[in-house]
Amino acid sequence: MEIIQGGVCAAKGFQASGVHCGIRHNRIKKDLALIVSQVPATAAAVYTTNLVKGAPLTVTKKHLANGKAQAVICNSGNANTCNADGTQIAEQMSELVEKSTGIAAEDVVVASTGVIGQPLSIDPIAAGMEALVAGLSHNGSQMAAEAIMTTDTTIKEVAVEFTVGGKTCRMGGIAKGSGMIHPNMATMLVFITTDAAISAPMLQKALSSDIAATFNMLSIDGDTSTNDMVTVLANGMAENPEITSEGADFDAFMKALNTVNVTLCRMIAGDGEGATKLLECKVTGADTLEAAKKSAKSVICSSLLKAAMFGADANWGRVLCAIGYSGADVDVNKIDVAFQSAKGIVPVCKNGAGIPFSEEKAKEVLLEAEIEILVSVGDGPYSACAWGCDLTYDYVKINGDYRT
Amino acid sequence: MEIIQGGVCAAKGFQASGVHCGIRHNRIKKDLALIVSQVPATAAAVYTTNLVKGAPLTVTKKHLANGKAQAVICNSGNANTCNADGTQIAEQMSELVEKSTGIAAEDVVVASTGVIGQPLSIDPIAAGMEALVAGLSHNGSQMAAEAIMTTDTTIKEVAVEFTVGGKTCRMGGIAKGSGMIHPNMATMLVFITTDAAISAPMLQKALSSDIAATFNMLSIDGDTSTNDMVTVLANGMAENPEITSEGADFDAFMKALNTVNVTLCRMIAGDGEGATKLLECKVTGADTLEAAKKSAKSVICSSLLKAAMFGADANWGRVLCAIGYSGADVDVNKIDVAFQSAKGIVPVCKNGAGIPFSEEKAKEVLLEAEIEILVSVGDGPYSACAWGCDLTYDYVKINGDYRT
Repeated sequence: MEIIQGGVCAAKGFQASGVHCGIRHNRIKKDLALIVSQVPATAAAVYTTNLVKGAPLTVTKKHLANGKAQAVICNSGNANTCNADGTQIAEQMSELVEKSTGIAAEDVVVASTGVIGQPLSIDPIAAGMEALVAGLSHNGSQMAAEAIMTTDTTIKEVAVEFTVGGKTCRMGGIAKGSGMIHPNMATMLVFITTDAAISAPMLQKALSSDIAATFNMLSIDGDTSTNDMVTVLANGMAENPEITSEGADFDAFMKALNTVNVTLCRMIAGDGEGATKLLECKVTGADTLEAAKKSAKSVICSSLLKAAMFGADANWGRVLCAIGYSGADVDVNKIDVAFQSAKGIVPVCKNGAGIPFSEEKAKEVLLEAEIEILVSVGDGPYSACAWGCDLTYDYVKINGDYRT
Repeated sequence: MEIIQGGVCAAKGFQASGVHCGIRHNRIKKDLALIVSQVPATAAAVYTTNLVKGAPLTVTKKHLANGKAQAVICNSGNANTCNADGTQIAEQMSELVEKSTGIAAEDVVVASTGVIGQPLSIDPIAAGMEALVAGLSHNGSQMAAEAIMTTDTTIKEVAVEFTVGGKTCRMGGIAKGSGMIHPNMATMLVFITTDAAISAPMLQKALSSDIAATFNMLSIDGDTSTNDMVTVLANGMAENPEITSEGADFDAFMKALNTVNVTLCRMIAGDGEGATKLLECKVTGADTLEAAKKSAKSVICSSLLKAAMFGADANWGRVLCAIGYSGADVDVNKIDVAFQSAKGIVPVCKNGAGIPFSEEKAKEVLLEAEIEILVSVGDGPYSACAWGCDLTYDYVKINGDYRT
């Protein structure tokens, strides 16, 4: 498997586009994205577990009930959530896609991201459709990636090339992250495309299984969004024998999907709202997978630890504290902790108690932009990894007045 | 019942003291507190649920096993947690109390608060005992309250006068709060004294029952501390007939305890690390108590909502979002939300959807130092209240480099 360029347009038969249609006041920020497949594709999705769900999710869920889709439309700047006419607007968005591309409205994935509870007018979207469709291109992934950004500071896209049944396949994705992100099944917008041929049930199985170890292990701020989802469209144009059961082909597909998802997870975590650092907590030696995951997530979610990482402060007591209240079944007297980055590794805690370390060296390690928090909780066989970011002044600034 | 002065020294027979003994470098910040009762007292306590527990908690738990205590010693500046010799140091603290006051070491409540994982030397404490005991006074509550502060900016004390069985009783408390505070049974240090006569089982019952609606409904940052506890000493010097069962006397005691605890909760929330505002979320109309509590706690814990409150931004979508992921069984289409303060009330959401409101008025309301977030989730009979604070630049600053 190889990392390649092209994002959601890397796979055969996919085009994308992004324009500024006017939902946002800022004219140089694109706010409407479109992804289309040349032929109908198998589709799978996972959705937020928040009881408050964006209207677009309801519409998308209905459209994907038959396991098929051919296009994705997504706006930023407004979440179309908690609005009386939300479902109607989301339906109208799919109808606009049908009208301007010929792809049936019921084959459209609809998504919206932005402020909750402000009515979304269909007018700028309708007005922008012509330019959006005219802009569709096999090089359009970056434009679409930009159009779905909210407070993200960088576009997030990735693509890989892999082999299934002797055929070269490609898979790529774009994501928007930033705030309101917390592990609980599909916690951001991620659109993945692939030209691999795979049945709808196996595609859903691959996605549901992979997110347990990827997007569900990601947290920016502990808030689970109302709108977020991960969708995969697989159009089969790579002409591999369709994957319809587990086996080597499914494994190759899973590996590609995991690479795409882990890469997007790391991108989202590193670009969390106000973040200056990507935090990766790797827990090993747990007696159960649940204990490993709970421990890793709890560390990544601790506001105190996140603030300490912002300050490059090796305050390992907060790592122990977070594991202690995580609900994970671990022996706190067996916990070892080390901080690691490109500058080296600093062990700070052994068997639940502090060990002498150089504060100077720790500061050097923690001033890097990617920090690994390595935790061993015993001799068990299970491990887990969680991703997050530091808590900074800018997180407060961005969220103190997001709506204006 | 009447609010009175005197804190932990309001009740008959209690004296307190606080000194700077040298655990902290800052010489004008007291770091060692002592509370003593003239006679042995009935005692009850609740402790943190964090698996990582401070050594002082283990020692206190042992000392309170017989339901009796006569003194409290507490230092700030060092949590005496995750240290190899922690238990030994905590035992030595009780022995120092015995040596200098004659109160048996096994009747001493020991507590420590501050940094985790740095060895606590007994030397400054031993050296400070003479001045600490010499300073004991019936006006000493404020000194003790100051000595247990960590990053708190104000002392926290309260006292009430109430009647049990025709006798005037008094109850008072001091608390330290600030960071690492999240609802999960006894999430900070609180020392309560009363001269009411009450049996040990009824005292424990009163405390355990009350904290479910007070300290367990308080969150500053979602981090459950390793060291925190709430203890009550009841020395019986008010000479009321001992409370040994439920009934009118127990109810009067419970009411006094609840007043003390709610007052301390509000003080702790309003003085959370970096906080500029006290947030009180009142949820009504729930079908179950659990749904009311989960909803209220989730709102108070949302980083996004907390940051919005800092910015005086009426971003009610975040209130709905937090209830939506709280796990509470509610109908999101029946949720009403209003913001209220001394400047008035602004309804912002009705039946799960936004309603027009004056942004100007909302800003005026949210610029106050005490904000009520009023949430109605339906027609059910249950309600709950949770306390928290806003998320500010200063929270990040304080916790970005706490150890230096």
